[in-house]
Amino acid sequence: MGNNWIKTSKGVFKALVLIVLATHYTTLPAQTPDQAADAAVIRKIYDQALTDGLCYPWLHDLCFDVGHRLSGSIGAEKAVRWSKAVLDTIGLDSVWLQPVMVPHWERGAAEEVLVIGTKKRAGIRLDALALGGSVSTNDKTLSGEVVEVTSWQELDDLGERGIRGKIVFYNRPMDPTKIRTFEAYGGAVDQRVHGAARAAKYGATGVLVRSMGLRLDDYPHTGTLRYDTTVTSIPAVAISTNAAERLSALLQTESTARVSMKLDCRTLPDVLSYNVIGEIRGSEFPDQVILVGGHLDSWDVGHGAHDDGAGCTQSMDVLRYFRQMGYKPRHTIRCVLFMNEENGLRGGQEYAREAERKGEFHVCAIESDAGGFTPRGFGFDAEESVLNKFFEKVAAHQSLLEPYGLKLAKGGSGADISPLKGQKGLLSGFSPDSQRYFDYHHTAADVFEAVSKRELELGAGSMAALVYLLDKYGL
Amino acid sequence: MGNNWIKTSKGVFKALVLIVLATHYTTLPAQTPDQAADAAVIRKIYDQALTDGLCYPWLHDLCFDVGHRLSGSIGAEKAVRWSKAVLDTIGLDSVWLQPVMVPHWERGAAEEVLVIGTKKRAGIRLDALALGGSVSTNDKTLSGEVVEVTSWQELDDLGERGIRGKIVFYNRPMDPTKIRTFEAYGGAVDQRVHGAARAAKYGATGVLVRSMGLRLDDYPHTGTLRYDTTVTSIPAVAISTNAAERLSALLQTESTARVSMKLDCRTLPDVLSYNVIGEIRGSEFPDQVILVGGHLDSWDVGHGAHDDGAGCTQSMDVLRYFRQMGYKPRHTIRCVLFMNEENGLRGGQEYAREAERKGEFHVCAIESDAGGFTPRGFGFDAEESVLNKFFEKVAAHQSLLEPYGLKLAKGGSGADISPLKGQKGLLSGFSPDSQRYFDYHHTAADVFEAVSKRELELGAGSMAALVYLLDKYGL
Repeated sequence: MGNNWIKTSKGVFKALVLIVLATHYTTLPAQTPDQAADAAVIRKIYDQALTDGLCYPWLHDLCFDVGHRLSGSIGAEKAVRWSKAVLDTIGLDSVWLQPVMVPHWERGAAEEVLVIGTKKRAGIRLDALALGGSVSTNDKTLSGEVVEVTSWQELDDLGERGIRGKIVFYNRPMDPTKIRTFEAYGGAVDQRVHGAARAAKYGATGVLVRSMGLRLDDYPHTGTLRYDTTVTSIPAVAISTNAAERLSALLQTESTARVSMKLDCRTLPDVLSYNVIGEIRGSEFPDQVILVGGHLDSWDVGHGAHDDGAGCTQSMDVLRYFRQMGYKPRHTIRCVLFMNEENGLRGGQEYAREAERKGEFHVCAIESDAGGFTPRGFGFDAEESVLNKFFEKVAAHQSLLEPYGLKLAKGGSGADISPLKGQKGLLSGFSPDSQRYFDYHHTAADVFEAVSKRELELGAGSMAALVYLLDKYGL
Repeated sequence: MGNNWIKTSKGVFKALVLIVLATHYTTLPAQTPDQAADAAVIRKIYDQALTDGLCYPWLHDLCFDVGHRLSGSIGAEKAVRWSKAVLDTIGLDSVWLQPVMVPHWERGAAEEVLVIGTKKRAGIRLDALALGGSVSTNDKTLSGEVVEVTSWQELDDLGERGIRGKIVFYNRPMDPTKIRTFEAYGGAVDQRVHGAARAAKYGATGVLVRSMGLRLDDYPHTGTLRYDTTVTSIPAVAISTNAAERLSALLQTESTARVSMKLDCRTLPDVLSYNVIGEIRGSEFPDQVILVGGHLDSWDVGHGAHDDGAGCTQSMDVLRYFRQMGYKPRHTIRCVLFMNEENGLRGGQEYAREAERKGEFHVCAIESDAGGFTPRGFGFDAEESVLNKFFEKVAAHQSLLEPYGLKLAKGGSGADISPLKGQKGLLSGFSPDSQRYFDYHHTAADVFEAVSKRELELGAGSMAALVYLLDKYGL
């Protein structure tokens, strides 16, 4: 797009094109004085986010000074210290650490997964990452024939006869026709979560899983698996989508193809870690909490920038905006950085238990854990009666959020806040554009550089705007 | 975001979270049979775009085999041949070249812009690109004191006294608080377009313009300027936002700071070039055209991937989808790749003249020239009566587009199609997410790798879906 207003006649028109294009989503309906006041506060929140935000430089430090931070690791310990120290600088009423015992799994030495026993491809390396929680190959190299399946049905049809002693290769891709990529993820991730357990039942010696990504590239995507305690736990790795395509093609032509894998992973005793929490006390309802949060832990590759450094630094900045604005909330506004979302959810469970003990009620818990992309809206989950009340009292004001491209809809939440469901408050999931999320999710590509400053800041502003409406109109 | 369904209880819930989150924007309202049929066609269009699309590999070839392609350059010539050859492969009813004479400006040797005459920063290079159309420094090095201004008022207040013999530095940033970035662009680009002419009036010898970008980085953004024929044309360069910040800081402390610049640009005689056009003839209304297009030319840096390789390859793929589907349109569906949008609009003007001569009516002309990002909707421009008719007859069906995140709104169009305004048909601008567009616009960073395959394909699908509704419900 250029500037054809270098010719005046057209110039005027193109200027118009630009401005109209720029504003056609941002015209407000006629407002009551009260709406106008709300609109002004929300505008001020976004102005701060876009001109004075700290979530982006904070994300930089989290990515480069701390780095990735799987539960139980030194990185996770550093992340706890770092985020506590940052929260201590923004003038909150209190900042504290909430102890929680977390699992401690280590990848160990880099995985080695090779194609062997073929003429064409012998010795080529398949880009791979052990799945979180996988057992090792016991200092040996595991090798075997490969059986490719794309459905549980195929697996069951092969049965013990077709599978015993072999390595099962799960190669059902995420469905690219799903417009919301989380739906495509939900339709494929069962292979990663349950593949090892179900193959082991038939005597498989190991599994390869096609990475959970929509793009063809060389990044393996790790993530948690779930073993079945009634059968042997077998080694499991994710291979990149390119590697999966290559292996699949090879198996068509060279039935003798075998794969060897060497994994060095181990699970160590649980480790003491923490949820990191800061809050601004509510003036009217100190025991009624509006929570914003994300998870502080990440997988052990890349920076964990989108997953979920973005959600953490956005949540921290939300509280800072209110402090900067001198806003006195009626309810307690709390930022919670949960530990261990990726491989246990211990932080979220402990947080809910503690809230129960203290008799705190969470009016709404908002989680940002879908990446630092352009905001599209928020999903809400609660009992029907609570949900309806919210849509009458708060969402009634959502025209105030439309200029910012936000839509409030029923359905959607977050993993860390899910244990709060028993409280019968609202649960909300921040819902940014999802198209690129699975290009980075659980990979070495999830780095600081993959996050857009503006998109991250717009997300933080959106979360703060929702918190403001919740605080003002309550339930 | 991980998978807390590693614990079955939570597993079920998280699966729910994912799916609900995934679907809460994609539930259709109750439909008539006719709507259901339309919904099925639109779904089929997106399925093709997302599973069988060619816009992404085409964009790859345009970027790597052709490269950037400013009007009059060898690149532009190659782009014409390349796109004609591709259109010839997709079984259209006709493909042709429409001759048009275009300007031919060349950058020549790389710009050299240095800070001189200071202790601290002497000799440091400012990342710069000559503005399109700029005159050279006549094989000499131009140097002078620098006067920084951030408004036309400041310029006028300085006047001849403060400006004669100096280099004017325009340093008004794009406004980051505008949610739609095109609005921020519209509010700053006057410095680039008119800065040289207005400074020359006061006797300036050259101008530096802060790049039109929202991010602080080292990429200068080129783009067109407009000289005033009544005053001398002076050399003009854009400097990166980082360079602008550095220079501005320096000027605070070292008033003796000077800048030297050497530009090698020249304007050559006009060159014969072409709009590249392909169409599927309409069965009922062959002389009534639904146009999809973008501009084939680009600036002479990077790949011109978002601006506007994306719009070109999307438009080409739209016609291919209909052919693949065996769809017989009632109106003629035409893809137009316009030449010379960036520095003249000659292609758009010639196209409109020719359409006039042939007595063709354009029901709607849709331009994609805002980048290959996630689709948000379309803007429409026309006479009030036409616009209202459209919103009654076609936009009435926009609930069919909501599952794909699309919104149809009044206002917005495109530069190349603007000369068709006289025809009293509809003009439409495809409106993708705008947050990252000005990270790439007119820079060396606008490369193939900056485009997401899915986002590009979703845009092409969205354009085809709109064309389908226009073809079915007409005006």
